[in-house]
Amino acid sequence: MPRFPVLGILGGGQLGRMTALAAIRMGVHVRTLAPQHEGPVAGLGETFVGDWTDPRVLAEFARGCDVVTVESEWAPAERCASVLEGSTRLFPTPESLMLVRDKGLQKRTLAGAGLPVPPFACCRTPDEAIDAARSFGFPVVLKRYRGSYDGYGNATARTDADVHAAWTDLADVDGLLVEAWVPFEQELSVLVARRPGGGAVTYPVAYTEQRDHRCHAVVVPAAVAASVADAASKLALQAAEAFGIVGMLGVELFLEPGGRVTVNELAPRPHNTGHYSIEGSHTSQFENHVRAVLDWPLGDPSLRDRCAVMVNVLGHRSGDTRVDAMAEALAIPGVAVHVYGKETVRPRRKMGHVTVTGSDPAEARSRAERAAELLIL
Amino acid sequence: MPRFPVLGILGGGQLGRMTALAAIRMGVHVRTLAPQHEGPVAGLGETFVGDWTDPRVLAEFARGCDVVTVESEWAPAERCASVLEGSTRLFPTPESLMLVRDKGLQKRTLAGAGLPVPPFACCRTPDEAIDAARSFGFPVVLKRYRGSYDGYGNATARTDADVHAAWTDLADVDGLLVEAWVPFEQELSVLVARRPGGGAVTYPVAYTEQRDHRCHAVVVPAAVAASVADAASKLALQAAEAFGIVGMLGVELFLEPGGRVTVNELAPRPHNTGHYSIEGSHTSQFENHVRAVLDWPLGDPSLRDRCAVMVNVLGHRSGDTRVDAMAEALAIPGVAVHVYGKETVRPRRKMGHVTVTGSDPAEARSRAERAAELLIL
Repeated sequence: MPRFPVLGILGGGQLGRMTALAAIRMGVHVRTLAPQHEGPVAGLGETFVGDWTDPRVLAEFARGCDVVTVESEWAPAERCASVLEGSTRLFPTPESLMLVRDKGLQKRTLAGAGLPVPPFACCRTPDEAIDAARSFGFPVVLKRYRGSYDGYGNATARTDADVHAAWTDLADVDGLLVEAWVPFEQELSVLVARRPGGGAVTYPVAYTEQRDHRCHAVVVPAAVAASVADAASKLALQAAEAFGIVGMLGVELFLEPGGRVTVNELAPRPHNTGHYSIEGSHTSQFENHVRAVLDWPLGDPSLRDRCAVMVNVLGHRSGDTRVDAMAEALAIPGVAVHVYGKETVRPRRKMGHVTVTGSDPAEARSRAERAAELLIL
Repeated sequence: MPRFPVLGILGGGQLGRMTALAAIRMGVHVRTLAPQHEGPVAGLGETFVGDWTDPRVLAEFARGCDVVTVESEWAPAERCASVLEGSTRLFPTPESLMLVRDKGLQKRTLAGAGLPVPPFACCRTPDEAIDAARSFGFPVVLKRYRGSYDGYGNATARTDADVHAAWTDLADVDGLLVEAWVPFEQELSVLVARRPGGGAVTYPVAYTEQRDHRCHAVVVPAAVAASVADAASKLALQAAEAFGIVGMLGVELFLEPGGRVTVNELAPRPHNTGHYSIEGSHTSQFENHVRAVLDWPLGDPSLRDRCAVMVNVLGHRSGDTRVDAMAEALAIPGVAVHVYGKETVRPRRKMGHVTVTGSDPAEARSRAERAAELLIL
């Protein structure tokens, strides 16, 4: 029998899709498991669709894989780990994922490892939250420990009454995380790829621009002082070590007034702020994720051009997907268009992205923005 | 229903695989048809396996495709064309393919369009071949009109007796093509992408090195005088126009002593000498093939770095494929490894390739050669 490495991916979204494309290029057999229709991974490798909390489904999926990885920190990695047979490994480990998934535990782990984080408190009651808010100063951000992302499960409170309202809306049995609101100058991101033995590479510091709590655009390298870039890179690498990450880690950071860099959140997987790396870097985050989990030498994360800009293509309506304006978008010089193959569109849903590399970030961004607007699905 | 473009590819080899990967990235649905096991396109889009000379198989395959293309000039395009329904188009057209497939007709079409070709004669008898050989001067190359490639179906004759022997071995009912042996200084290649309306882009001139009649290495740009590069590019574009090509055309050229450039052979599809373009060019030959046949604006064919080097990974034994040395190959900085997923290996079979981009062609080549040697399958 021919022997190609077999990589299992828990998840069927665009991160799985782009990871699969990178793996296939290197002759890696890809298998995905998603709870619903396979979506963006349809037609890529072997697609399993089934109840991924069912040990029998997981065991069948994982059988014969060299490595199983996840495209989301919410994938049931710990259930999968408990049914692995033979030499099949799972990266990132369930232990790493547990530390990241719970936002309170994540913050405590970061702080415990000596990483600078904005003031936070894990609160069990509205009164504790109000105490924390008063001690940090309003406004504060309240977050669910689990399942909050891209603005979902979060609320900003400016008054005691806001805290009470947020508590009613969001609080779980173990309460909420309360964070000081950070008057950041910029949001930054650093991607780290890390192998099982601890060898790691760090991507250049990225400037990330959010709109309505979603990543809108990423510009690499971020226009920050060398000392800031240096601090950001070091923090990201320390975070990867503190959480024992294997694979990609996206580290979201705040650049605070005065040049202080603090850690906002971690994502233990390829990250939206690293999509530019497919064209922009010598080795993309997706290829390095595959290389890392298979324990292969990591590739060069440096930029191929002076800069790279990525703009997300988000949905603006609900219905069946239509890609009407490819010709118009591709008529803009130098745009690389990625369409994720999602069959239905919803407002704010991530449908694709556009990358432009070049020498002038403003000019590259203008082209990427125009193409992304044309492609709005 | 969601509406993504549907691209059908007749063929299931590595050219189909790399075309499919480029198409999928842009949200194009890919469907392939191959006569045997799907091989390198296994797990990429919808794979049809069946008798591709059967009109019913072809009709089922083509139904719902926006465009059908080929990964080989030998795919039964004309049979497919005759069963197309609705608005489905087929590029390159069967007419273009017919002109290319028959090596005699190809040479006559080139010469008829005023393109410089080495002396040739379409011979019906051994005596005609010997007359041609004496008029050109020995040695000459005898080629079957159809089905000759990579040294198969060809013979070099140095004497009348060689001509007779080659005739016995190779001649078809319509005889053989006899070509003057060209004492070339270099073999060059130029890739052209051309849209239905005639818009076209031309890739930089590539130096191609054959070993044992197979492409071994490609270095881009070729180290030739600007006048030579200019002549080669113009010839390639003229050839694409003369044959009415839609999609990619690979134009193999001879650089003869004194700086004359002549056309050797055409391949109306993505070409082995353009594999470097995946990492080396702003837009790869595979993406531009997809864009061309879908009549989308073509992407920038220029190099992203000063140079790109591609080395083929050929089989050296017979048996099941093993990919043992990925870690060793990937430890060499800057190598991009492509493994085609073929389940069995044979001596000289194309199993993958390695690309290195950089500023120094000799240094890039040395890294690519080392990686390719490690990967020998």
